[in-house]
Amino acid sequence: MKLKKMKQVTLKPHMTVNELLESMKEGGFNCHRVAKATDLFTLMIKESETTTFLGLAGALIPGGMRNIIRMMIEKHFVDCVITTGANLSHDILETLGPSHYHGMENINDEELKKMEISRIFSTLIPQKAFIKFEDMIQKILDFIPNEKLSSRQFIYELGRQIKDPNSFIRAAFKEQIPIFSPSFADSILGVQAWLFAQNHPLQIDVLKDHSEFSQIVYESKKMGAIFLGGGVPKHFIMNGSQLNNGLSYAIQITMDRPEHGGVSGASVKEAISWGKVAPDAQWIDILGDVTLVLPLIIAGVISRT
Amino acid sequence: MKLKKMKQVTLKPHMTVNELLESMKEGGFNCHRVAKATDLFTLMIKESETTTFLGLAGALIPGGMRNIIRMMIEKHFVDCVITTGANLSHDILETLGPSHYHGMENINDEELKKMEISRIFSTLIPQKAFIKFEDMIQKILDFIPNEKLSSRQFIYELGRQIKDPNSFIRAAFKEQIPIFSPSFADSILGVQAWLFAQNHPLQIDVLKDHSEFSQIVYESKKMGAIFLGGGVPKHFIMNGSQLNNGLSYAIQITMDRPEHGGVSGASVKEAISWGKVAPDAQWIDILGDVTLVLPLIIAGVISRT
Amino acid sequence: MKLKKMKQVTLKPHMTVNELLESMKEGGFNCHRVAKATDLFTLMIKESETTTFLGLAGALIPGGMRNIIRMMIEKHFVDCVITTGANLSHDILETLGPSHYHGMENINDEELKKMEISRIFSTLIPQKAFIKFEDMIQKILDFIPNEKLSSRQFIYELGRQIKDPNSFIRAAFKEQIPIFSPSFADSILGVQAWLFAQNHPLQIDVLKDHSEFSQIVYESKKMGAIFLGGGVPKHFIMNGSQLNNGLSYAIQITMDRPEHGGVSGASVKEAISWGKVAPDAQWIDILGDVTLVLPLIIAGVISRT
Amino acid sequence: MKLKKMKQVTLKPHMTVNELLESMKEGGFNCHRVAKATDLFTLMIKESETTTFLGLAGALIPGGMRNIIRMMIEKHFVDCVITTGANLSHDILETLGPSHYHGMENINDEELKKMEISRIFSTLIPQKAFIKFEDMIQKILDFIPNEKLSSRQFIYELGRQIKDPNSFIRAAFKEQIPIFSPSFADSILGVQAWLFAQNHPLQIDVLKDHSEFSQIVYESKKMGAIFLGGGVPKHFIMNGSQLNNGLSYAIQITMDRPEHGGVSGASVKEAISWGKVAPDAQWIDILGDVTLVLPLIIAGVISRT
Repeated sequence: MKLKKMKQVTLKPHMTVNELLESMKEGGFNCHRVAKATDLFTLMIKESETTTFLGLAGALIPGGMRNIIRMMIEKHFVDCVITTGANLSHDILETLGPSHYHGMENINDEELKKMEISRIFSTLIPQKAFIKFEDMIQKILDFIPNEKLSSRQFIYELGRQIKDPNSFIRAAFKEQIPIFSPSFADSILGVQAWLFAQNHPLQIDVLKDHSEFSQIVYESKKMGAIFLGGGVPKHFIMNGSQLNNGLSYAIQITMDRPEHGGVSGASVKEAISWGKVAPDAQWIDILGDVTLVLPLIIAGVISRT
Repeated sequence: MKLKKMKQVTLKPHMTVNELLESMKEGGFNCHRVAKATDLFTLMIKESETTTFLGLAGALIPGGMRNIIRMMIEKHFVDCVITTGANLSHDILETLGPSHYHGMENINDEELKKMEISRIFSTLIPQKAFIKFEDMIQKILDFIPNEKLSSRQFIYELGRQIKDPNSFIRAAFKEQIPIFSPSFADSILGVQAWLFAQNHPLQIDVLKDHSEFSQIVYESKKMGAIFLGGGVPKHFIMNGSQLNNGLSYAIQITMDRPEHGGVSGASVKEAISWGKVAPDAQWIDILGDVTLVLPLIIAGVISRT
Repeated sequence: MKLKKMKQVTLKPHMTVNELLESMKEGGFNCHRVAKATDLFTLMIKESETTTFLGLAGALIPGGMRNIIRMMIEKHFVDCVITTGANLSHDILETLGPSHYHGMENINDEELKKMEISRIFSTLIPQKAFIKFEDMIQKILDFIPNEKLSSRQFIYELGRQIKDPNSFIRAAFKEQIPIFSPSFADSILGVQAWLFAQNHPLQIDVLKDHSEFSQIVYESKKMGAIFLGGGVPKHFIMNGSQLNNGLSYAIQITMDRPEHGGVSGASVKEAISWGKVAPDAQWIDILGDVTLVLPLIIAGVISRT
Repeated sequence: MKLKKMKQVTLKPHMTVNELLESMKEGGFNCHRVAKATDLFTLMIKESETTTFLGLAGALIPGGMRNIIRMMIEKHFVDCVITTGANLSHDILETLGPSHYHGMENINDEELKKMEISRIFSTLIPQKAFIKFEDMIQKILDFIPNEKLSSRQFIYELGRQIKDPNSFIRAAFKEQIPIFSPSFADSILGVQAWLFAQNHPLQIDVLKDHSEFSQIVYESKKMGAIFLGGGVPKHFIMNGSQLNNGLSYAIQITMDRPEHGGVSGASVKEAISWGKVAPDAQWIDILGDVTLVLPLIIAGVISRT
């Protein structure tokens, strides 16, 4: 075994994020891994034959990640997005203007309820934002074609109607990057779609997602993925990757633990046994809050590409 | 503030689980909480006006929880189940005989892949079990009615076809306990349903779940929930509970952290601000592996009811 | 590789803890591990040639574990104890009567301060208990011999003075089980010892602990350890075990993570590389709150031995 | 309640770390907190009446943090350091040249042992480095004065002997910044001190630390602290702060959980009930790996001061 010496991380005033990453790469633990992930994601982007999948789970927009996700789409850092319904809902919520507020986790929740403010750990959302959301989404749904749609087609049509240039759904529409949301029914967007469907002919067929997604998988020469959190998006991408010899590249950022067997905290390495990650893949598991890790990686990547 | 003194937990040889829980109730931290949750779940069961919802997420059957979940359904401890597709898939997998094996997390995953064995942390599943699963599920799908089904109706029809008395899907069919799986498409069961639907007229309408679920919610005098893990099942139940003044009772068992805002680790208390849990609700957050906590609680409950 | 089939955990009314453990052993993840740890600890106790070390870290007595620790000492389940100063302090605090109270983590801490109540997550301690503690400990210190003492000798002399039969320090004195506390200076006991030493000739020599501890290590035919939490106690035992070919048995119960390199969350397996655990050792890592896991294991052990 | 709107984090190519922090401050969760902690630490440094304490726990030098800690001392960002013995040992280890290597957590530990390489999660240390360490430290100990020393005095004397300009022990000696290590006996440095004391008159009196530390506390107009990990350093600082109305400023960076009551994961807020943090203090809890969070904060601070 040939060992590579570490160096101690060194800082200097006014250094760039990229310079910080270069020094962090010499260090250990997650410091090293975030820097290595920046290298790996840069490689994935440069390699034109790799189809890169982005998994979005967790409270990403209440954490401030909307612009970064949009930029990853606009710059074609990723070729296909799989998301929970919540991230779609919060993206649409923000098209009405900033609707998230700084708060604290120790606020009295009974008081918040009386004030009609909802809490996501330390982020607050006034309920009136959701009422505006409902009005707007019902108007948008009127423009959705009256035919059986996959979640991807449905989201594509949403993107066509959204005017806010900061929306990642809008950006994906413009850039022709497919967004899938196999569990979108479980979200406030899903509830609105259901309400609309009570007296309109909206039809969404989640099984159709598999047809479209497997097509993308089969057409990929190599597959890479960056997982922000776990959940359905991670599971869906991993499941698909089995059809094409597994991911060649994978970056996972999560705070979840592996020991109880849940998919969200499972190591990338475990996926090798399933054929979901190739035995010779390059991959990095990062233990950290996405809101802290993603800005670092992407600030590094855009300084290199 | 009137304070209640703790006592130190005391053990004796050959004590019953119920006696252990009585003593653990005097202690602190999770020891106390698991005992309190046993009391609370017993109360929820006894209160006939409470509709109790069970959320199933994570690797519950690879953890050995199948019989306990089935028993919770057979004994009508719960009135409605919301699950990920994975738990449905593993329940059906087990109808073919025990298909999970003891392993370790440090096994070489490349070797496992060559041996065609898949790993879920320390649990192993030979791939041949999945092949048998596919054969069986394709045969079962032939019997599913040719009409637009909610996930609940689809799972109900699966339950009709399953013969294994240890299956919780089967038990729910027999006991007329509804099971919803809003994200079931994202599972090996979902993939099989999709394959079947390529040349058969299977139709699944996830928006229909909302119609059926909201009906159950509206008809509930009081609502209670026990969340095993988080994910879509927790989110779906919490979302529904808003329609009926929030949960009056809630027990959450999870290893996930709250600090990054994801729904799986969010405290029950936070849901009060959303109107998903009633301000005067009784609730308990337990930090622990479900495989360790659930057997204790249910062994206590069945000794009392 | 010969695989062992799992079975699903099965419960019955009025079952004993030992019966529950037998069934949990068939399951997966931490459920399986707690049952296996019960087997392993039973083996360690029965094997007369094994010297068993107990590491005590974290808020064990505020969690209700005092009687269980005392029983482990009285029954000679362990041969040597290494603890933080906090566990000594809380043991002595309880000799004045129960001084811990049930609380909640969401209490207003400013209000608590005004009420002179201190909080340890969900456990509360009125400050007046600490004042009584100070009075008592100053009286006890008068009886400590005026010579250079290791932490073990100091704690032994404390045990001689303590009358409460529920004290684990007392039990260790009576049973001649050595207790070391290399970091005891960092505790309210340590502060009291310092105050006393301002005008009394108390001398404590922490380097002397190494002389006495290494003697115990060298005299051990085989070494085993059970680590409740990590910290100094784990590090101290592990460091000593290097002198004698490493631990032959190890059980670790912790909630800490390994990914950032801290000793408290480090896997037992990692210690093999250091020679702190023997390559052929039997060991089990359990992810869980000690207050939940320890009562289960010890209730099982006392039903078998 | 007046709410402050969040903005979504925005990146640009070649941005500085300071610019990144400015944008992260608009976001949520730990992204926001790391930026706020940078502001708070800058304030603590600028306020000349505040005595700032630095707590060092966990595998900081195997994580690459040595230069950053040294710089914090050289620039007088902190006025007093409390550390575990491990951080002292690793600092001295590095005076012999880089002795830490990049590795992986999945390496076979039995193989590593045969190769005489020790593992700290993903960092590797050849055992020969420890042998060189022993030689050197025994030579240094010859120069330590033959009188009763606090840990602070002992470390100060070590600093006098160390020549490596990158050593933080050396920097603290030169800058007259006191370093305490109340649990230093529990480390390879402590073992070496003990071996030396077998036939040399070395005397270390840990109770004396309280005399010296309380003097510093009493002389502080205001107290602030930055906790890297928890353990003895956090506990020792918090304990001292009670003597002076509690900390006015606190920044905590840890991966540990609060729910089981251990001091390492306890929230800063909890310390208010104890009088360890002032009710009107400014404080920030950050959930994250120190190796990732500290470089960001300090790179920001040195760009502002």
